[in-house]
Amino acid sequence: MSPKPLDYESLNENVKKVAYAVRGELYLRASELQKEGKKIIFTNVGNPHALGQKPLTFPRQVVALCQAPFLLDDPNVGLLFPADAIARAKHYLSMTSGGLGAYSDSRGLPGIRKEVAAFIERRDGYPSDPELIFLTDGASKGVMQILNTIIRNEKDGILVPVPQYPLYSATISLYGGSLVPYYLEEEANWGLDFHNIRQSVAAARSKGITVRAMVIINPGNPTGQCLSEANIRELLKFCFQENLVLLADEVYQQNIYQDERPFISARKILFDMGPPISKEVQIVSFHTVSKGYWGECGQRGGYFEMTNLPPQTVDEIYKVASVSLSPNVPGQIFLGLMVNPPKPGDISYLKFVVESKAVLESLRRRAHIMTDGFNSCRNVVCNFTEGAMYSFPQICLPPKAIEDAKKAGKAPDVFYCLKLLEATGISTVPGSGFGQKEGVFHLRTTILPAEEEMPAIMASFKKFNDEFMEQYEDYRGYSRM
Amino acid sequence: MSPKPLDYESLNENVKKVAYAVRGELYLRASELQKEGKKIIFTNVGNPHALGQKPLTFPRQVVALCQAPFLLDDPNVGLLFPADAIARAKHYLSMTSGGLGAYSDSRGLPGIRKEVAAFIERRDGYPSDPELIFLTDGASKGVMQILNTIIRNEKDGILVPVPQYPLYSATISLYGGSLVPYYLEEEANWGLDFHNIRQSVAAARSKGITVRAMVIINPGNPTGQCLSEANIRELLKFCFQENLVLLADEVYQQNIYQDERPFISARKILFDMGPPISKEVQIVSFHTVSKGYWGECGQRGGYFEMTNLPPQTVDEIYKVASVSLSPNVPGQIFLGLMVNPPKPGDISYLKFVVESKAVLESLRRRAHIMTDGFNSCRNVVCNFTEGAMYSFPQICLPPKAIEDAKKAGKAPDVFYCLKLLEATGISTVPGSGFGQKEGVFHLRTTILPAEEEMPAIMASFKKFNDEFMEQYEDYRGYSRM
Repeated sequence: MSPKPLDYESLNENVKKVAYAVRGELYLRASELQKEGKKIIFTNVGNPHALGQKPLTFPRQVVALCQAPFLLDDPNVGLLFPADAIARAKHYLSMTSGGLGAYSDSRGLPGIRKEVAAFIERRDGYPSDPELIFLTDGASKGVMQILNTIIRNEKDGILVPVPQYPLYSATISLYGGSLVPYYLEEEANWGLDFHNIRQSVAAARSKGITVRAMVIINPGNPTGQCLSEANIRELLKFCFQENLVLLADEVYQQNIYQDERPFISARKILFDMGPPISKEVQIVSFHTVSKGYWGECGQRGGYFEMTNLPPQTVDEIYKVASVSLSPNVPGQIFLGLMVNPPKPGDISYLKFVVESKAVLESLRRRAHIMTDGFNSCRNVVCNFTEGAMYSFPQICLPPKAIEDAKKAGKAPDVFYCLKLLEATGISTVPGSGFGQKEGVFHLRTTILPAEEEMPAIMASFKKFNDEFMEQYEDYRGYSRM
Repeated sequence: MSPKPLDYESLNENVKKVAYAVRGELYLRASELQKEGKKIIFTNVGNPHALGQKPLTFPRQVVALCQAPFLLDDPNVGLLFPADAIARAKHYLSMTSGGLGAYSDSRGLPGIRKEVAAFIERRDGYPSDPELIFLTDGASKGVMQILNTIIRNEKDGILVPVPQYPLYSATISLYGGSLVPYYLEEEANWGLDFHNIRQSVAAARSKGITVRAMVIINPGNPTGQCLSEANIRELLKFCFQENLVLLADEVYQQNIYQDERPFISARKILFDMGPPISKEVQIVSFHTVSKGYWGECGQRGGYFEMTNLPPQTVDEIYKVASVSLSPNVPGQIFLGLMVNPPKPGDISYLKFVVESKAVLESLRRRAHIMTDGFNSCRNVVCNFTEGAMYSFPQICLPPKAIEDAKKAGKAPDVFYCLKLLEATGISTVPGSGFGQKEGVFHLRTTILPAEEEMPAIMASFKKFNDEFMEQYEDYRGYSRM
């Protein structure tokens, strides 16, 4: 009998090709172990609240009131909610037609898109048009929609950094395009090397690929670097010369842990450069409420902003967004609150500042604890986490470990990470899930475990790693790379 | 200079092919008129809260508390929230790891998937497996994911009812498949006619199309019928014989306005039929919090349940769901509340029942007012809205109106609906947006305007329609079809 339409052999081949390591073999094994009662430290996904980060109070008060608008008429509401949260809830409810239970416009509520535009203008010093801002159910959904708009067939190439966040490789597979990898330079603090990038483009073109877009993730995921202004400037020139749309994944723009290289948006640098380039290069930039000091991943709020896209294209993107009706409205309100937080003089201002600073300062300290911890381990080297939420140490695996991994039918870094998981409960993602140079191995952890637990986690890691290295180092002597 | 990657001429052709009439020309014109200050009655989308339906109190209390868990420790919480809402909020928070701000498993929270399975079992009398239930950001996103899993190329055909909800045609275009239309029989209360369906399949096959799936919408959108048990039984036999997966859009299962034909799920009828058919036919069924007496469209909560899908396929669907991390968590909680509402004896039970009955009974009355209203108009005939939220009258347009529409470059029903909009502010969707037989014209309205406004709306419609018909009817005499 012939296979049924949803039997495995009948499925869309692009679906089968999708790989998504962040919730791959390691995550599944960790979930199993957790069911068996083992304590697991999930550092595989940037999911701060799952690791104990408390939500900021003010935005939760506002969204709770929006969900329960009948409370606004209750004489006791002031006992539980401050006046500015009440005022803000009324402000957002007045932007909806029917509260949180009504579909919004498919691009998101116009009032919130105006608040996003004002935020971008304050950030970059250049005006932003709310008509070019679409709200989404988290940034990932926006990235998926834009890639679906770009990719026509398997000859369309998208330049993606290696290591990359696997959303990109997975989505390119799903929509049947070609991933064109370019390597970030670990020795140059995970910066861009345009000599190599040009080689990647040339290699792709020689295979008949039309390279159409370039992805950057700044600050970097999984690599944690902040790109320099000079690097981004060169990138924009490159996109201009090569006729590439730039997909700027800037979701970690609030997560900065050093003062030398603040976040600067690709869009600001583009406009600083002036015409012709500022009028020509197409950029789509992505942002979210899931990261920053908010970490509101479960709410699924995000936006993308389009620069230099013609109105006809914006209309097409609007049309496709309409098919799934509207992004979730509570997530839109979180986004409004993120771009328009309490101001000096507001009742909740001080509390909001104290809470958000505490999150960011603790993340900064954790970035240091983690990097220093990794660098104190045998055969481990790690660039400092300048931004984002990840540490991406290189693990120099002894030849015998690589050999044993092969025998077990595992990639060497998967082998290492599985052993780490079984020994310590630390659930990481192997570097091969993000891509890495041939013969070089990494793992990714988030820097999100609670600060007070961090020293114990790093000690546990060090104990495992150093014993692993001890066990596998060749008696003939294996020297550090 | 060559076009840029996001210039219109460079876009994915499938994106350009997407048509989505529910937010198409009529909606855009209505939005313009609204900006100009005209009062618009939006009946284009099934968006109850936008037309004044109040949210049910209990679920909103629970979700508000989940958003603001710090209230649970506040000694004043009992002044604003009943004890069962507090208990339920704790129940759902205990299912999360980190509250609403943490990503859940990509399939949704396991605890809520269990509640959905229990609901399905109570409804159908057959056990349901939570592992085969995936939560989604509204039903549309689930439909899109499943179609993306099925469609391999333009030779894969999906049987879609005509008239249909344009989510299906839009998504099939977007993912590059072929829509194979089958006509619902207006004269047989929009039922299925398998003679015609077989002809559609044969015609598609003669063009080299592999027909792989069949969509039913029950209760019907835009047509409002409830399919009979006999009709669904025949449908399942047909899917078995033709090796088709059944996509059962059952989002209106709570919206029933007559007692002769209650909703019965395709899955229940399948299991009633017994082997071999009950073990063979693959079904994916979709449900949502956006419809029913909830109408919580903006929350974007939904699920799909898979029947007879092999584990390897379920794994693939899980993998792709993982790419966008997780459905929004507040929407998941609404779904939990929908499938597990207050029970007799709970403090909030009576209020919940009163509120939800009021919504359903009013919808039932509105279904009658609307159908009767349409049937009292010149050249308008309309089947009764047995379920769902729509009325889909046939408008018998005089030849001169059809001629004038052609001169204006519009489809005749678009021409009629635009005139209706300009004259009355009633924003409908022309039948051509859903598909209809050649030379026959319809429009779709929701039955959602407030009950007290309904008589005035229908009077306004009648006045417009009868004047329109008066104006366009040929002096030689145009007789009703």
